[in-house]
Amino acid sequence: MIRLTRRYRWPASHRLHSDALSDEQNWQLYGKCNNPYGHGHDYVLEVSVRGEVDARSGQVAHIERLDTVVQSSVLDDFAHQNLNCLPDFAGVVPTTENIASAIERRLQSNWPNAFPGPGPGDGPVLDRVRVRETRNNSFELET
Amino acid sequence: MIRLTRRYRWPASHRLHSDALSDEQNWQLYGKCNNPYGHGHDYVLEVSVRGEVDARSGQVAHIERLDTVVQSSVLDDFAHQNLNCLPDFAGVVPTTENIASAIERRLQSNWPNAFPGPGPGDGPVLDRVRVRETRNNSFELET
Amino acid sequence: MIRLTRRYRWPASHRLHSDALSDEQNWQLYGKCNNPYGHGHDYVLEVSVRGEVDARSGQVAHIERLDTVVQSSVLDDFAHQNLNCLPDFAGVVPTTENIASAIERRLQSNWPNAFPGPGPGDGPVLDRVRVRETRNNSFELET
Amino acid sequence: MIRLTRRYRWPASHRLHSDALSDEQNWQLYGKCNNPYGHGHDYVLEVSVRGEVDARSGQVAHIERLDTVVQSSVLDDFAHQNLNCLPDFAGVVPTTENIASAIERRLQSNWPNAFPGPGPGDGPVLDRVRVRETRNNSFELET
Amino acid sequence: MIRLTRRYRWPASHRLHSDALSDEQNWQLYGKCNNPYGHGHDYVLEVSVRGEVDARSGQVAHIERLDTVVQSSVLDDFAHQNLNCLPDFAGVVPTTENIASAIERRLQSNWPNAFPGPGPGDGPVLDRVRVRETRNNSFELET
Amino acid sequence: MIRLTRRYRWPASHRLHSDALSDEQNWQLYGKCNNPYGHGHDYVLEVSVRGEVDARSGQVAHIERLDTVVQSSVLDDFAHQNLNCLPDFAGVVPTTENIASAIERRLQSNWPNAFPGPGPGDGPVLDRVRVRETRNNSFELET
Repeated sequence: MIRLTRRYRWPASHRLHSDALSDEQNWQLYGKCNNPYGHGHDYVLEVSVRGEVDARSGQVAHIERLDTVVQSSVLDDFAHQNLNCLPDFAGVVPTTENIASAIERRLQSNWPNAFPGPGPGDGPVLDRVRVRETRNNSFELET
Repeated sequence: MIRLTRRYRWPASHRLHSDALSDEQNWQLYGKCNNPYGHGHDYVLEVSVRGEVDARSGQVAHIERLDTVVQSSVLDDFAHQNLNCLPDFAGVVPTTENIASAIERRLQSNWPNAFPGPGPGDGPVLDRVRVRETRNNSFELET
Repeated sequence: MIRLTRRYRWPASHRLHSDALSDEQNWQLYGKCNNPYGHGHDYVLEVSVRGEVDARSGQVAHIERLDTVVQSSVLDDFAHQNLNCLPDFAGVVPTTENIASAIERRLQSNWPNAFPGPGPGDGPVLDRVRVRETRNNSFELET
Repeated sequence: MIRLTRRYRWPASHRLHSDALSDEQNWQLYGKCNNPYGHGHDYVLEVSVRGEVDARSGQVAHIERLDTVVQSSVLDDFAHQNLNCLPDFAGVVPTTENIASAIERRLQSNWPNAFPGPGPGDGPVLDRVRVRETRNNSFELET
Repeated sequence: MIRLTRRYRWPASHRLHSDALSDEQNWQLYGKCNNPYGHGHDYVLEVSVRGEVDARSGQVAHIERLDTVVQSSVLDDFAHQNLNCLPDFAGVVPTTENIASAIERRLQSNWPNAFPGPGPGDGPVLDRVRVRETRNNSFELET
Repeated sequence: MIRLTRRYRWPASHRLHSDALSDEQNWQLYGKCNNPYGHGHDYVLEVSVRGEVDARSGQVAHIERLDTVVQSSVLDDFAHQNLNCLPDFAGVVPTTENIASAIERRLQSNWPNAFPGPGPGDGPVLDRVRVRETRNNSFELET
C-alpha cells in the first residue's frame, strides 16, 4: 500500500457570518472576518489517495484521472468564487472546517465514476482531504 | 548603505472590472477574475528601506516604527477587506499593479512623520514596494 | 472529526551538553552544538487539535483560545530565551526531542482551563505536538 | 515514543517506460515523461524513525548514524544518476511509487547494522519513507 | 514604471560535459554532474517585464500573452527534455548560465510578435531572466 | 554578464546590547532580544557574484571555490556560535546589519586568493551580500 498526496491551489473569497448568531456575537466570534464585503485567501487543497501499486504502470492512481475528478468536482465551482454563493454553504458558515467537509462529500460522490475499480489503476480510495487556509492554519479530514 | 526588506501578509478580496470597458471586454480581459462576487488572495507585501547604519544601535531603521507606519497606513485598511470598497480604487481597477501604487503613495505620505531624519534611526528612505499576489506573480515599484 | 494544525514560530538559543557524560563524550556526541556559549534556531511549533465541528460556529476550536494557551504556556517563556535557563531543562539536555516533550506537558496541564468541554468550541483535544528545529529536522509526539 | 523526520534531497533523471506496454500505450499513459532521452527532478526524501528518547543523550536516534545509512544505502547510488540504469529498476518503471519502495527495501536491509538495538540510541525503527517528486506530488510508505 | 515577475517551472535532465576538455578535466570540473547518463532538476524560471501601467486595464502586461510567449519559446522545447539534445546546446555545455542565456535569446527574438507596442498592454520590455537550478543556486541576466 | 546567487545557512545565537546605552535604553530599543542569556536564529546567507561566463566551462564561477571561500571566511567561525564572542563584534552590536557588514569585509579580504583573475573562472567579483535573519527580515549590501 502506498499513499499519494497531490496538491491543488485556488483563490476564493468568503465572509464568516452565522445566521444562528446575533450581529454582535458574529463580530465577537469572527472579528474582521465578519465584515460584510468579505475577504479572500489562496487556499491549498491536498488530496491523498491510498492503494496498491499497479505492476504494469508502476502507479497507485492515474494522475490525470485524479486531476479531472478534483477539477470537475471542486475547482470548477470553487476557484475565483465567493464561497458564500455556493449551494454547499447555504445556511452553513464557510469556515475552512466546513470547506474541507464539502470537498470531501463532493469527491466521495464522484469517486466511483473516476475510479471504478478493481482494474489496474482503477482502485485507489480517497484517504484524506486537507485544506490549508493560510501558512499557519490547516484542516484535515481522514475518510 | 544597507537595505532592509521586511515582509507583511494580509488577506483580501477583489473583483477585476474596468468601467471603461464593456461587460464582454471585461470578461475577455480578466476571465474568471471578473465574476461579480469577487474572489481573494493572501497578499504578501515587502517594504524595503535604505539608509546608513546607526553606529549606536547598529540598525538601519527602528523596526517597530516601520511596522507602525505600515500597519496604520496600509494593513489597517487593506486586511480582511474587499479592496474594491476602498477609496484608492474608486474608478481604479484593483489589479496588483494598482495595489502596489496605492501602497507606495500611502507610505510616502506618512513617511516624514515616521522617519523625520536625520537623527539616529530617523533617516531611512523608502526604497521599494513589492506586492506578491500569488506564488507565481509579483509586482514591484522602485521609488 | 476534523484536525486543525496551527503553526507558531519562536527564536531561541541552546547548548547541547549532558551532565551524565564526560566533556569528550559530549563533544563526540553533539559536535559543535556542545560549544559552551550556545547557538540558536528559529523553531517552528505545530500544534494539532482534534474534535467535532461545532454546528453553530463551524469551527473545531476557538483559534484565539488556542493562541492564548500556546502563548501563555509556551511562547512567553521560550521565545527569545536561552532554553538551558528554563526549569524544564534543569538536568535535561534541551534537544528538540526534549523540547517537544516539555511543550506537550505544558499544554496538557493548561488544556482543561482553555478547553473545559463539552460546550460548543470547548471540547477539542490536544492531538499532536511537532517541533521543527531546522528545515531538515522535525520531531513529533502524538498524545 | 517520538518520531523524528529528516529530509534529504537529490537530483536525478528518469524515463517512464513500461516494457509490458506498446509504444503507443506508453505515450498515452506517461505523456512527455516517456520521451526516450529522459528528464529529471530534484527529489526530496523524508525518512521518519520512531523510538524512545534515550535519557542520557536526549535523542531518539544518532543523527549522524541515520545520515550515514541513508547516504550509503540510497544517496550514493541515486544522486546525480539516471535512475533507469540502477538494478532496482531493471524491468521496473522508475515511477516515484517504485522509487519509494526501492528506498524502503534498501534502508530496511541495512537498518540492523546501523541501529542494532537495544542500547541507548540503538533502537529506533524505520517508520515511514516519503518521496516528493515535485512540489505537487508526494508518495509515502508506512513500514 | 512597474516590474512584473512571473514564475514558471519545468523538469529536465542534462549532462555537464565540455568537448574542449579531456575526460579527466571534465570529471575534475563537473564531478558527478559529468556522469554519461545525465541527471535532472526541476528548474524554476522567473521572467521579469517592465513598463507603464495601462490606465484602462490596470495592467503592465497581458499575463496570457506573456504565458503564451514563454510557453511557445521555451517550455514547449525545454520541459521534460534532455537539454543536451536541444540545438541551443550543440557544442555548448548546458550549465544553468548557458540555459539562462539561451532562454533570453529565445524570448528576445519572439518578443516583438508578443508585445508589438505601443498600444495598451502592448509595450512591456523584457527586463530580467532568472533561472533557479536548485534551492541554493540561481543565475540571472539583466537585459 | 551574469549573476550567480548561492545560498548558505547557519545557526547561531546573539544578544542585542549596546555598551553606549543604559540598561533601560537597551531594553527599550531591543526588547526581549536584550535578554542577557541570548537567543538564536537560523541565518540564511546569500552571496552573489557577477562576471562573464567562461566559454570552456560554461560557468561564471567555480562553485567549489566559492563554497570554500565562504566556508573558511565565514561559516567556520559563525556557525553554531554565539556571535557576541567573535572579534568582529567587540564593541559592535551583532544586529543583522552589522553581521552583513562583517561578512562582506571577510569575503572581500579573502576574495583575491579565491578568484585571482583573469583566467577562466578566475574573475567573478563579489556583487552582493544578503543575510536573512528570519522569514520576515533580510538585509543586503551591494559592493
